[in-house]
Amino acid sequence: MHRVVVVGAGFGGLSAARALIGKQVEVTVVDQRNFHTFQPLLYEVATAGLDSGDVAYPIRVIFGKADNVTFRMATVTGVDWDRREVLVADSQALPFDSLIVASGATARFFGIPGASEHSFPLYTLTDARRLRDHILRRLEDVDAHPEGAAARGALTFVVVGGGPTGVEVAGALAELLDVAVRHDGFRFNRSAGRIILVDALDRLLTPFRESAAEYAAGTLAGRGIEIRLGQSVKSVRADAVELEDGSVIPTRTVVWAGGVTVEGTVAGGIDAPTGPNGRLLVDHDLAVRDHDDVWAVGDAAAVLWGGAGPEADTVCPQVAQVAIQSGGHAARQVLARLDGRPTTPFAYKDKGIMATIGRRAAITQFRSGRVVRGTLGWLAWLALHLVYLVGFRNKIVVFINWSWRYLSWGSGPRIIVSEETAPVVDEDDGPVGP
Amino acid sequence: MHRVVVVGAGFGGLSAARALIGKQVEVTVVDQRNFHTFQPLLYEVATAGLDSGDVAYPIRVIFGKADNVTFRMATVTGVDWDRREVLVADSQALPFDSLIVASGATARFFGIPGASEHSFPLYTLTDARRLRDHILRRLEDVDAHPEGAAARGALTFVVVGGGPTGVEVAGALAELLDVAVRHDGFRFNRSAGRIILVDALDRLLTPFRESAAEYAAGTLAGRGIEIRLGQSVKSVRADAVELEDGSVIPTRTVVWAGGVTVEGTVAGGIDAPTGPNGRLLVDHDLAVRDHDDVWAVGDAAAVLWGGAGPEADTVCPQVAQVAIQSGGHAARQVLARLDGRPTTPFAYKDKGIMATIGRRAAITQFRSGRVVRGTLGWLAWLALHLVYLVGFRNKIVVFINWSWRYLSWGSGPRIIVSEETAPVVDEDDGPVGP
Repeated sequence: MHRVVVVGAGFGGLSAARALIGKQVEVTVVDQRNFHTFQPLLYEVATAGLDSGDVAYPIRVIFGKADNVTFRMATVTGVDWDRREVLVADSQALPFDSLIVASGATARFFGIPGASEHSFPLYTLTDARRLRDHILRRLEDVDAHPEGAAARGALTFVVVGGGPTGVEVAGALAELLDVAVRHDGFRFNRSAGRIILVDALDRLLTPFRESAAEYAAGTLAGRGIEIRLGQSVKSVRADAVELEDGSVIPTRTVVWAGGVTVEGTVAGGIDAPTGPNGRLLVDHDLAVRDHDDVWAVGDAAAVLWGGAGPEADTVCPQVAQVAIQSGGHAARQVLARLDGRPTTPFAYKDKGIMATIGRRAAITQFRSGRVVRGTLGWLAWLALHLVYLVGFRNKIVVFINWSWRYLSWGSGPRIIVSEETAPVVDEDDGPVGP
Repeated sequence: MHRVVVVGAGFGGLSAARALIGKQVEVTVVDQRNFHTFQPLLYEVATAGLDSGDVAYPIRVIFGKADNVTFRMATVTGVDWDRREVLVADSQALPFDSLIVASGATARFFGIPGASEHSFPLYTLTDARRLRDHILRRLEDVDAHPEGAAARGALTFVVVGGGPTGVEVAGALAELLDVAVRHDGFRFNRSAGRIILVDALDRLLTPFRESAAEYAAGTLAGRGIEIRLGQSVKSVRADAVELEDGSVIPTRTVVWAGGVTVEGTVAGGIDAPTGPNGRLLVDHDLAVRDHDDVWAVGDAAAVLWGGAGPEADTVCPQVAQVAIQSGGHAARQVLARLDGRPTTPFAYKDKGIMATIGRRAAITQFRSGRVVRGTLGWLAWLALHLVYLVGFRNKIVVFINWSWRYLSWGSGPRIIVSEETAPVVDEDDGPVGP
């Protein structure tokens, strides 16, 4: 039987493997984690609105009843092209006839000094949990050591990157601080908590229309978030971030929403031509250049928009819908080749883009350019994310969490689960000079 | 204002602090974690039935609206009796006029070689998450390396201790293995999975009547669990457990439900007479011997049963109800002293004891000695645990998780969240000799 290995169980890999269930192929899905992560809601885990399990779904449950799909939890270390095997750590290699690379991306730090060591990316569930624990710990730190808290940046949260993730994190952080002061008995003034959103470009939410970006900026500002546009980050330290204009912001928390790269991922290790952000160049049918029967999808690939429109040869954004659609398409190309049929070009069906700023404020921009915002945009955002969330149990639990939170401003899982229980304050704590 | 420090935010500490809300005292609750743990359901987290957040509740939310109660997240390092201050790591000491010690207990290993290094206790949320990740990792290990899995003990789970916790873990493990084979596509035979419950005594569930213990043993055996009574553990290794009779069971997973001690806890460091398991000796009114205005409650104290019955001078079991009732009682004694009223002796209201074996099998034993078991006992168990679970959101989410699971045998949060993503197999893996 024709063997297909799917590397990665994100949106792209899941979609590909699902499209192969019950077909005349033997599929192995390999991922270093045993769960799929619903990345669009990671920012809610990071800001203690949802719990880890709500946005994670066991991969095995998805394929448990599929006789021709098996799952292997393993870290992929490379590909042996001569033997046509995917190499994995501490386990036997996975031979393939067709390979679908859906290995995603990782945070891109652009070589900015200190960024990879001292900032918090938000791409994996581990990232989100680390950030949540860190934020909650900062609040405890301020409560135990109120003196000099502002000066040492304990209540200053800097978000780097004004795309959807950055906007969502900034908005959710503001709500977390509101709740902390209002419900949790923290004894600092809400006004002492600063959230600063930084971007090198001169506007937010570049994929959106100008009017949507202005709405986002206005809403964020109205919620007390400082926006610094046209400012790139010069360096990140444990106790501060320095901007290009020389200003130094004392802070213990730099959230990195500044972009992604495939460097360091499985796709990054494949010897093939690459495009923007190191993404693997693929033909219109998603075939990786210079390799036979190797396909790349989602964030890992420079997926071309396709279709008959003017954007046919432009590269798709790195969003869930592109991964979902390209994953399924790659699977169908594998089956086409197997049947001796010609492959077909991928054509992205743009369902619009969304970003949420927080309670009753989100933006949905349809392909037509029409923008729905405010409460209606927000309800659309909630509904759509519930629909796409994997797993019925997760849908229900997230729905209840949201209802509960938005109706009562009640408690989310504001718990610090990491081992390190003390000290709350960093060793070298103290006021930071400019 | 009279200052009360409550050490620990388990059942005892929460109950004490809650009884002091709105009274003429200034209360500080100190705990090394920022959440209360609902310990009776930890075994469900450990066996991937519930998620961490479902059994954890942020302490600050409980006291957020109480003007006279503050929370401090800190590790208590000792008590300065001359200055009457509770010392905490990396933060200013907490002065007190009255002190309520509710610091709980930790796993007791009885000096058995290897037990503390190689077995998995189940007393904290971290314990439960560690155990869950470890168990799920063993299943992945077997799937990736089926050869010799039984010989190296990858599918053998040994539970030490035949009390309620041990019985609950053993029963839940059996259900987890059922689900793994039935729904998760693991390719081992269910019969290859062994669960062995070991206890040094010659019966299970000693606080229960003999008939209840026999029912538990029969039900567990019917679900494929091997029960080895009258067997103490001689040593625990990374790859095996050795029993007193010389038999060696190859296993990677020893769950330690063998008892608790207050050694190593705050109560353990207090210079005062101690009783069984190192628990602080207290008078009938819960006052710690040799100290003024110091009270001890819950697992930390040798709480006397009290009342008019024949068991008045016996020590209460270390269960949630004793902690809840004694916590409230200690708080009322603080207020009595403050008002110049005499203290009153504690009298435990025994509401009965419960243990669950799994789906449709639990035991409830009332004070009268009457035992309800089977489906009815199980439903009573589910209902009671929902009632006592802290937080309305948690109640709903757990209710849905349970309904979902028991109606559909569907998925629980079977996700491995710990960082270590590889290797799945231990370095020194290989068949283990006898």
